[in-house]
Amino acid sequence: MNDSSTTAAARGAEGPLLVISAHAGDFVWRAGGAIALTAAGGRRAKVVCLSFGERGESARAWREGRTLDEIKAVRREEAEQAASALGAEIEFLDAGDYPLSETRELVDRLVHVYREFEPAVVLTHTLTDPYNGDHPAAARMALQARILAQAIGYHAPGKPLGAPPVFFFEPHQPEQCDFKPDTLLDITAVFDRKRKAMECLPAQQHMWDYYTDLAKRRGVQLERNAGPNLGLPKSCRAEAFVRLYPQTTGVLA
Amino acid sequence: MNDSSTTAAARGAEGPLLVISAHAGDFVWRAGGAIALTAAGGRRAKVVCLSFGERGESARAWREGRTLDEIKAVRREEAEQAASALGAEIEFLDAGDYPLSETRELVDRLVHVYREFEPAVVLTHTLTDPYNGDHPAAARMALQARILAQAIGYHAPGKPLGAPPVFFFEPHQPEQCDFKPDTLLDITAVFDRKRKAMECLPAQQHMWDYYTDLAKRRGVQLERNAGPNLGLPKSCRAEAFVRLYPQTTGVLA
Amino acid sequence: MNDSSTTAAARGAEGPLLVISAHAGDFVWRAGGAIALTAAGGRRAKVVCLSFGERGESARAWREGRTLDEIKAVRREEAEQAASALGAEIEFLDAGDYPLSETRELVDRLVHVYREFEPAVVLTHTLTDPYNGDHPAAARMALQARILAQAIGYHAPGKPLGAPPVFFFEPHQPEQCDFKPDTLLDITAVFDRKRKAMECLPAQQHMWDYYTDLAKRRGVQLERNAGPNLGLPKSCRAEAFVRLYPQTTGVLA
Amino acid sequence: MNDSSTTAAARGAEGPLLVISAHAGDFVWRAGGAIALTAAGGRRAKVVCLSFGERGESARAWREGRTLDEIKAVRREEAEQAASALGAEIEFLDAGDYPLSETRELVDRLVHVYREFEPAVVLTHTLTDPYNGDHPAAARMALQARILAQAIGYHAPGKPLGAPPVFFFEPHQPEQCDFKPDTLLDITAVFDRKRKAMECLPAQQHMWDYYTDLAKRRGVQLERNAGPNLGLPKSCRAEAFVRLYPQTTGVLA
Amino acid sequence: MNDSSTTAAARGAEGPLLVISAHAGDFVWRAGGAIALTAAGGRRAKVVCLSFGERGESARAWREGRTLDEIKAVRREEAEQAASALGAEIEFLDAGDYPLSETRELVDRLVHVYREFEPAVVLTHTLTDPYNGDHPAAARMALQARILAQAIGYHAPGKPLGAPPVFFFEPHQPEQCDFKPDTLLDITAVFDRKRKAMECLPAQQHMWDYYTDLAKRRGVQLERNAGPNLGLPKSCRAEAFVRLYPQTTGVLA
Amino acid sequence: MNDSSTTAAARGAEGPLLVISAHAGDFVWRAGGAIALTAAGGRRAKVVCLSFGERGESARAWREGRTLDEIKAVRREEAEQAASALGAEIEFLDAGDYPLSETRELVDRLVHVYREFEPAVVLTHTLTDPYNGDHPAAARMALQARILAQAIGYHAPGKPLGAPPVFFFEPHQPEQCDFKPDTLLDITAVFDRKRKAMECLPAQQHMWDYYTDLAKRRGVQLERNAGPNLGLPKSCRAEAFVRLYPQTTGVLA
Repeated sequence: MNDSSTTAAARGAEGPLLVISAHAGDFVWRAGGAIALTAAGGRRAKVVCLSFGERGESARAWREGRTLDEIKAVRREEAEQAASALGAEIEFLDAGDYPLSETRELVDRLVHVYREFEPAVVLTHTLTDPYNGDHPAAARMALQARILAQAIGYHAPGKPLGAPPVFFFEPHQPEQCDFKPDTLLDITAVFDRKRKAMECLPAQQHMWDYYTDLAKRRGVQLERNAGPNLGLPKSCRAEAFVRLYPQTTGVLA
Repeated sequence: MNDSSTTAAARGAEGPLLVISAHAGDFVWRAGGAIALTAAGGRRAKVVCLSFGERGESARAWREGRTLDEIKAVRREEAEQAASALGAEIEFLDAGDYPLSETRELVDRLVHVYREFEPAVVLTHTLTDPYNGDHPAAARMALQARILAQAIGYHAPGKPLGAPPVFFFEPHQPEQCDFKPDTLLDITAVFDRKRKAMECLPAQQHMWDYYTDLAKRRGVQLERNAGPNLGLPKSCRAEAFVRLYPQTTGVLA
Repeated sequence: MNDSSTTAAARGAEGPLLVISAHAGDFVWRAGGAIALTAAGGRRAKVVCLSFGERGESARAWREGRTLDEIKAVRREEAEQAASALGAEIEFLDAGDYPLSETRELVDRLVHVYREFEPAVVLTHTLTDPYNGDHPAAARMALQARILAQAIGYHAPGKPLGAPPVFFFEPHQPEQCDFKPDTLLDITAVFDRKRKAMECLPAQQHMWDYYTDLAKRRGVQLERNAGPNLGLPKSCRAEAFVRLYPQTTGVLA
Repeated sequence: MNDSSTTAAARGAEGPLLVISAHAGDFVWRAGGAIALTAAGGRRAKVVCLSFGERGESARAWREGRTLDEIKAVRREEAEQAASALGAEIEFLDAGDYPLSETRELVDRLVHVYREFEPAVVLTHTLTDPYNGDHPAAARMALQARILAQAIGYHAPGKPLGAPPVFFFEPHQPEQCDFKPDTLLDITAVFDRKRKAMECLPAQQHMWDYYTDLAKRRGVQLERNAGPNLGLPKSCRAEAFVRLYPQTTGVLA
Repeated sequence: MNDSSTTAAARGAEGPLLVISAHAGDFVWRAGGAIALTAAGGRRAKVVCLSFGERGESARAWREGRTLDEIKAVRREEAEQAASALGAEIEFLDAGDYPLSETRELVDRLVHVYREFEPAVVLTHTLTDPYNGDHPAAARMALQARILAQAIGYHAPGKPLGAPPVFFFEPHQPEQCDFKPDTLLDITAVFDRKRKAMECLPAQQHMWDYYTDLAKRRGVQLERNAGPNLGLPKSCRAEAFVRLYPQTTGVLA
Repeated sequence: MNDSSTTAAARGAEGPLLVISAHAGDFVWRAGGAIALTAAGGRRAKVVCLSFGERGESARAWREGRTLDEIKAVRREEAEQAASALGAEIEFLDAGDYPLSETRELVDRLVHVYREFEPAVVLTHTLTDPYNGDHPAAARMALQARILAQAIGYHAPGKPLGAPPVFFFEPHQPEQCDFKPDTLLDITAVFDRKRKAMECLPAQQHMWDYYTDLAKRRGVQLERNAGPNLGLPKSCRAEAFVRLYPQTTGVLA
């Protein structure tokens, strides 16, 4: 019974994962576990970076006197290594940051990505972030492009997109971004890969421990919220997400 | 990999379902599909009715001049038939309605139910309902008892409860109860049983079509939100729920 | 066409007004205009004071060394005069304040009031007030009793109540009480009576000007929100309210 | 007494109704009853369609291989017929959809409409809609233009607009759009016209029954919320709305 | 101990205050007290007016037949006088109002202001205002520019900005703008200056008393919320604000 | 100028701190820094534990077969040591936990504490906590008692309480408790004492590192939100709080 929804869940579990982020490093800290989990399961995972974070997230390089082009090259290389460590493809749209400007052209490029990649699941930033205007801008474009890609009347190659669920990944100061986690993803099995991917970003070394601690904290919450008395591993690692659309399911659990 | 969460989901899918409702009929209209789905999958489902709804939900019987005892007897019988049609066990705590008073004793009885039944999933009313004070009262007691049942230090038979997820089922005027569905359950395969259970409640015949229409409406929403382009049945039936605690999962879908 | 709703609005405009307040003075400051407007239109208006505000709202009298009984007597007399100035009936339940305790008995007394008075409109306190616990307690009881009075199965004289709309009147610090006005009532024509009623409460003389200023401020807002370019009087006076239930109407305006 | 507000309500009830929608069909499903009610009362009603919905809401036509111009022509014709069935005027701004781009020029055109038509009441989309970016875009422009039209300093023909109330009409998935109805409009007397208008849109035949069911559901809610015990018709039909600005009134009802 | 935070508070108390407002008069009504308090304490205060409010806030001048240039000149002069009365510097960006358009250039100009002025505290409009689109537009640009000014990679003279706290000042209809005050500033000592500054704006004479009354009302609230039993002056004057970011402090008080 | 508010802040900074918690250990994890900071500044700090947490927070002891009295004795001793390490007084009301029942008597005991201790600042639990019913119950009683203690008409020794600000301390799963920090307290200088106090609770050793990590995380946020470019210590430690009432102040910072 209820094969259709089981299929839906199954396709989510089997289909490709698309991550749309404002800057080159965001996907590592915020969704590295989800990406690694996808890749480890034999599914495609793709990261689209709208910018390199060359102006807003490269303070040390600027202080060291690097040029814009140098910074972009370094950020690209590091992000490629991190993506590789996670098992993901990566594409850079180089749209500029601080500010990341919302344009119809950029949204159109994302529509093409959706139509070509046909994601089963989408991850992006929260719509609120009082510390960073690029994050909500990226999220708005990611959502707008997803809707346009669904319309047969929108001119872009490929067939109309389905309705892949969207999850917001965790911002740096979750409460200030109205981020109330409704999904805790167990990333224990792949946390080592996430840690390796983080270590591909040497300029932000202080973040390594920070996000390791966060993974523990979310892991403790996962254990506390995980339904029955499971034989959970003692030190779960987890990532937190918020769904945008209702979950469709064949079973309550 | 990630066996623990898979196990969690699996146990939710395999374990018993507990429904705590204020009145004798609530479980049919609001959660009949979820109950039937559970039973059809070979799992136990149990309904606990805190009252018969003898004062607040039996207007016709009062107009016909029935006595309180007659009304309670009729309500009990109808609810038993409906539960039977859905494949569920049912228990009546006969605590009185309109108002359903919150007492420590009633909460204690619910703790005993939790400890004994060991539910993997719990369904109850929303915490807000400006049209009915008994519904939130039932929900508050259901939640309070679940927490108490988790404490080894609370004196009641059985071992401490795990952390079964809680879902609020749909109230009659969802928007007025701040009910924003985040879970749409596909009940297409068992809708016939829900309809039969509804027909066990002849005094509220106008509700049969009402909740059939609602199931269609929620079904259309399920189709629209169901991730990829599935080969979904043309006329899905669905029930809507809201989670209280974050979902713990081994896969984003 | 649409006679039914017109009738509904008409009955609201023609039927009796019930005001349920925690303390003896609340109705004057917060709803004096609505009451006077009702009475001036030839309709009954009734105020039910759950307490005299003898402990929590009579600081000066306590400082002057009055006894509890003296204070209650004074508060009663002043409230009666104010009600009289507004054209309203008044009843005191003398349930005690600071704290006003929620009891089943008190709710039952309010059910009797509803059944007997058959209000077409109900006014009470907001459900949130971090400065005064009695106000939300009064509101919760007023709402609970209204629901119970609707049930034919609830034992009390009279026939089941309809569904009179409920409005929350304005608390002293509106924003802190999550009071976002959605209804601005023009009380210009009866503001003199409200002022006279306020002057029946000599112990709180500083409030007279305070609530006169508030009436002006709400009046300015009424003018600013009043649909088309009306020939409104230059100095409107208004009271602000928040609806609990959706407005039912035969015309959008 | 209180003639001013009575006049305000009266002018709302007597003045013209302006509906601003993103696509050609929206006004039928979401506000057809309000429009028909206005027209039936001898008042002007005007619909402004910012686009034809040619890309985003014409899936079937695209699948049948129609050209963009053909689709726009068909959509225009159908919308004209539906408007005619409701008794409304209609104007198409042909600004393109999917995406509907917010531009200063388009807002300016709407200012001209406001100044010329002088609406007493305005209807538009909700500001939140995670399923459709054009709807909130239309709403933002409708609101912005309304404000600009109020300023004598804004260069456009006609005199400054008053402050016509704005109502959001019901989106397709109300809870997901944070649509909590606060106004239920009785459209029983004109529901036949709404049905006929719906039938002017043959491509979306499945919507006819869907919105007929919705009208029943909202009708049931209207009956349940309609103040006193009215002799309401047994099968009310209703449409739900949310006010943006406080209601200004001379009577609480 | 805890010198760092004490220093932070001290620098807020010692550093410059930047006020970014949409129109030429806003800063007087909404933040005149905060500005005068800053100046009276020997600190710099600067007001940046994005426009003169020449179209949207000069109704009387338009009715009197003034030209656009005349109106701008008058508004500039009045605002300069008011700023002078408060002890503040003032700068006009002349970006046009009704609508105030958000552009990258205007944001860039604000970045330059931040970098040059190095504010320790920032005041601006609320992000929500259903009565005026220019106010939220100004706020969005003020916030965006503040973030950009923090990035060393953003090309503008000066060194990267710290993280000055941002406060929203009070809109004209606070509840409708979701303005829930969390900060009440005692302006008793400088209220005379605020009154004088208000009197520099003769076209809006009715506002003088309006904002004097508001200052009293907020003053009463300040007294009621001011921790222990202070020997507060009998007639406090206050302004209300809402913080955007968490307060950082070395002491809870 | 503005001496009154300065005085208010000063008295907050100089006056006694009252912490009301449900169980014996709560104050250590959630407010240990604030307490130590108070004591280190030469002010009194007092902790009132409504229960020992003997049933709900002593799982290990129950598993080890201890009796209720033994558990209470151990909890008391540990809490006394922790309070001592922080420099605080402590009082146990022994009202029982799981559930902690709200009673008029218990509220009255708290009124006596308020009147006697005359706190300048109050800390307690959040009003929402879906994981623990005792926490909100404690908070409701703490708030109710504070209001009652303000009324001269309430019979209890001592003079009426002023209006000490209330802060909610951080719950274990902040986002699920709608805890959005608006105050970050720098506890760097006293973190060692907090750590020592935590080590007085050997049964919850896993919490030591957990709350040390949390202090770092909140510390990073404090640095990021701390206004200007301060010479903050490299590794701040902080605790997060939420204010219930507006801050009253003589300076914006």
